[in-house]
Amino acid sequence: MRRVDINEVAPRDGLQIESRFVPTADKIALIDALSATGVAAIEATSFTSPKAIPHLADATEVMAGIHRHGGVRYVALVPNQRGAERALASHADEHNLVLSASDSHGLANLRMTPWQSLERFEALIKRVRERAFGVRINASLSTAFGCPFEGPVTAAKVLEIVARLDALNVDGVSLCDTTGMANPRQLGALCEQVLTHHPRLELTLHLHNTRGMGLANALAGWQAGVTRFDAALGGLGGCPFAPGASGNVCSEDLVHMFEQMGINTGVDLDALIRVSETLPALVGHDTPGQVVRAGRAERRYPLPAGVT
Amino acid sequence: MRRVDINEVAPRDGLQIESRFVPTADKIALIDALSATGVAAIEATSFTSPKAIPHLADATEVMAGIHRHGGVRYVALVPNQRGAERALASHADEHNLVLSASDSHGLANLRMTPWQSLERFEALIKRVRERAFGVRINASLSTAFGCPFEGPVTAAKVLEIVARLDALNVDGVSLCDTTGMANPRQLGALCEQVLTHHPRLELTLHLHNTRGMGLANALAGWQAGVTRFDAALGGLGGCPFAPGASGNVCSEDLVHMFEQMGINTGVDLDALIRVSETLPALVGHDTPGQVVRAGRAERRYPLPAGVT
Repeated sequence: MRRVDINEVAPRDGLQIESRFVPTADKIALIDALSATGVAAIEATSFTSPKAIPHLADATEVMAGIHRHGGVRYVALVPNQRGAERALASHADEHNLVLSASDSHGLANLRMTPWQSLERFEALIKRVRERAFGVRINASLSTAFGCPFEGPVTAAKVLEIVARLDALNVDGVSLCDTTGMANPRQLGALCEQVLTHHPRLELTLHLHNTRGMGLANALAGWQAGVTRFDAALGGLGGCPFAPGASGNVCSEDLVHMFEQMGINTGVDLDALIRVSETLPALVGHDTPGQVVRAGRAERRYPLPAGVT
Repeated sequence: MRRVDINEVAPRDGLQIESRFVPTADKIALIDALSATGVAAIEATSFTSPKAIPHLADATEVMAGIHRHGGVRYVALVPNQRGAERALASHADEHNLVLSASDSHGLANLRMTPWQSLERFEALIKRVRERAFGVRINASLSTAFGCPFEGPVTAAKVLEIVARLDALNVDGVSLCDTTGMANPRQLGALCEQVLTHHPRLELTLHLHNTRGMGLANALAGWQAGVTRFDAALGGLGGCPFAPGASGNVCSEDLVHMFEQMGINTGVDLDALIRVSETLPALVGHDTPGQVVRAGRAERRYPLPAGVT
């Protein structure tokens, strides 16, 4: 059975959308706790403009303060050349570039169409490769399964963008279901195409549970051959452009499902659940994660009194 | 593409666990509204002892008050011979017998092991068949994928019980994941076995979303060949023996997933969502349904101001 790698994105994708600023020391403690759970990677922060995302204005301090585990890759989101310089200075193991498959979402979120993003990436990637040998470069493709502004995004467009990214020699591509529009059939078919046409690229799925299909889509992705998944502890996250009942697919719920299926994630689920239990105090509200409340499937209850 | 039938169970499985009694007229209005959505069946009530489940003490009045649609099967839960008599008198289209695959859950919930339930069923089924030609008889097998008291329930035990039910000439069997312990791999394998060995039986899946796997399990069931699903509007329901974050798999979320995948359910999703929107006023709290909040995947948002 193919092993699955979990990329924990709550410190970046989760915390950036919260109503309160999480103090730098608390962010560092969260990342350090996550580092001990066996996740393959942690998206620790974003080197975005502090004006754009004030909640992650402490990116440099976070990267400097965390205790790095040998088995964990520390990822930083990198929106532009300036961000790449900061990420390089912070010794991020991976730069996660972002672009959108949808022109309108790209313009709304990044002020760039996908084609404009790809043009910028060329110089950026060249510069990172020159400066730091061994830094992994990933590109996260938002709205790869649909856009909240313009609707369907064709598989042909996604495949064209992925081919351009492949030609730019990125190490991996993440297909992001930014607002939970993907369905298992569509997602499985697109993942199969990307895996077939781009075997060199490491493919990651970034799923949201906006419409309850997060784990069903993860299952379909795994069936199609995907072995890398972004997930956010407690199901934190979401998208400001499409508010809903839920955010990113929940890390502990995803690990729980794979573990129940006998698929190794390398993650200590009990440890992950214990970190998830600290989230409400950190963010000031309950999280949509379900296993943290219901307990894993192995949980037993005592028989009611009088049953014999 | 195989069509899927939805059996809406909120009026029975959902309302019985609520903290407040829903007035009989409101139950009737809910069932009548559901009848117009295109669901294949509605589990309208339970002919249980009013002492055991006071919230459904009005079973006879509900069955007498609803307006029956030709295309909808009206199901009543039947726990025993007395319940069967009441269901016959109420002209239920289907009697849904219940037993548990787990001895301890059976004893806690029904005061019977599965073997004792099967013994009782023989006379009960004979009597219903004598009295009413054309009444469908289904048997719902609780804890078919695991028990909150004793843990794993083997596939061999479930298959033995299903074989006994087949021999008793029931029309259909529902495999119930009563406390959300099933995972897609286990569920797909068991459904394939039941479908292979009992092609005459109409197989239904009754799923709970306790640990977030509801739709993933539905997907796995559909892939295995299952075309009948119980679901509860708004994701109402749950199990008193295993409290968690969520209840039954949510009807509108399930229909939405299938529809997005191009699988016909016969259900008017927009109409179903409109009925779901009436639930909070009926039960006094928000529901865990996600599509009712996020809207279907086709939902569009306006571009933020200034984006060109």
